[in-house]
Amino acid sequence: MKELVFIGLGLNDEYGITLKGLEEIKTATNVFMETYTSHMPNFNMQNFEKICNKKIQTITRQTLEEENGKQILTAAETDKTILLVPGDPFIATTHVTLRIDAEKLGIHTRIIHGTSIMSAIVSLSGLHNYKFGKTVTIPFPETPAETPYNVITQNKKSGLHTLCLLDLKEPENRYLTINQAFETLQTVEMQKQKKIITQNTIAIGVARAGSNYPLLKADFIKNLDNFDFGAPPYSLILPGDLHFTEVDALIAFADAPVEFKRLFR
Amino acid sequence: MKELVFIGLGLNDEYGITLKGLEEIKTATNVFMETYTSHMPNFNMQNFEKICNKKIQTITRQTLEEENGKQILTAAETDKTILLVPGDPFIATTHVTLRIDAEKLGIHTRIIHGTSIMSAIVSLSGLHNYKFGKTVTIPFPETPAETPYNVITQNKKSGLHTLCLLDLKEPENRYLTINQAFETLQTVEMQKQKKIITQNTIAIGVARAGSNYPLLKADFIKNLDNFDFGAPPYSLILPGDLHFTEVDALIAFADAPVEFKRLFR
Repeated sequence: MKELVFIGLGLNDEYGITLKGLEEIKTATNVFMETYTSHMPNFNMQNFEKICNKKIQTITRQTLEEENGKQILTAAETDKTILLVPGDPFIATTHVTLRIDAEKLGIHTRIIHGTSIMSAIVSLSGLHNYKFGKTVTIPFPETPAETPYNVITQNKKSGLHTLCLLDLKEPENRYLTINQAFETLQTVEMQKQKKIITQNTIAIGVARAGSNYPLLKADFIKNLDNFDFGAPPYSLILPGDLHFTEVDALIAFADAPVEFKRLFR
Repeated sequence: MKELVFIGLGLNDEYGITLKGLEEIKTATNVFMETYTSHMPNFNMQNFEKICNKKIQTITRQTLEEENGKQILTAAETDKTILLVPGDPFIATTHVTLRIDAEKLGIHTRIIHGTSIMSAIVSLSGLHNYKFGKTVTIPFPETPAETPYNVITQNKKSGLHTLCLLDLKEPENRYLTINQAFETLQTVEMQKQKKIITQNTIAIGVARAGSNYPLLKADFIKNLDNFDFGAPPYSLILPGDLHFTEVDALIAFADAPVEFKRLFR
């Protein structure tokens, strides 16, 4: 059957996939996997192949982007083919083009969703989902960070939280740290002087969301600067207005200082 | 072990849980499940109990909210206890209080994430994740809908998409339909006259996200008014500025009229 199924691998390791996703793999002829749009720190391919009882072909960014996914599309034109993607398959927009190209070729496409860093970070923090504004990615210091700064500013003006994904370069195993993210934002602050990112700004650093040992720490930036978050991946929340139940959550789940209670009453 | 683990059931049916979630259930003493914060249309409890090889206790909103989750907390104070929640456990903020109460009692809490409607709808649409603003819920007609209208207005002003969750009353099996959501928003439009929700506004209706047969339809509201979306649950996207690749995605995945191409170039 001409079919291309995009399956989300979820977070962290080979057990992040859903039962539904696993069943789909078992009935497919070709199973591809990409590992470059997100980091799954504890993913063990050998064990995953054993769980699926299938041989899985890892594909590179080059195959997918420079060759327009030709290998996958050719496979899907004859038999049921799967592309495994970390997280939820289309939260990184990278694969939307491949899905459009498949549909244009008359290949039926489907999605089996996976857990996403987007909802995981919100869930872990205990902050209210409907109080998050636009999401941003904070880039490595070599790229200007004016856009994230502006998005945070805009969200704060509306009282909204900003979920900041921190950039990563998967092949080089390079991760923007939470401290580097602050530095990058502070550089823009120095130019703009809007007092959006100061030493007394509250932030929530998140390490290893979706793993068995996630770590959250909420505090003023001045106290987070030297905090050891341990191993990657990292993300960051810059909260807008906090409801008192959100403050309670940050104290309970993110070790926020109790003085937060006084600030938000 | 004093432990309370919140596990996301994901979407639609008993196969939406992750392998990790299933493993956790197998080693727990008490397994509770709530089914009122979200609708899983094809969930079969008997089959799920067979998959888990565990007896599962369904709990009501009353047990959780009026009795402050006492039954669950008491169980978790002696043995490993699980609360199964549709979607990702804390996207509905309902259970944050229970988690705080558990931590205050010295009960260790953990989260096993599930797939969430939040990322599923974004994924299905092919729209860019970082272009979504604040999310809203559109209420039943008996409740004023000024807030959702204002959020959509604010998001549009910033060029951002709005993900609208449509209200449901699970025990009564009552779902706000996409047409009712338009009517509700149009009532506010008539008062405010901001031309945010007109016959020529573009919208994307989504039915059964996360199921095997999701349906998306993008069109002007005037053409969606009589469109048959089939069975619930429903959601709605009111897009802001559309990038041409997003238009291509809407044509490929949401049967958008080709004239959209002319509008966004």
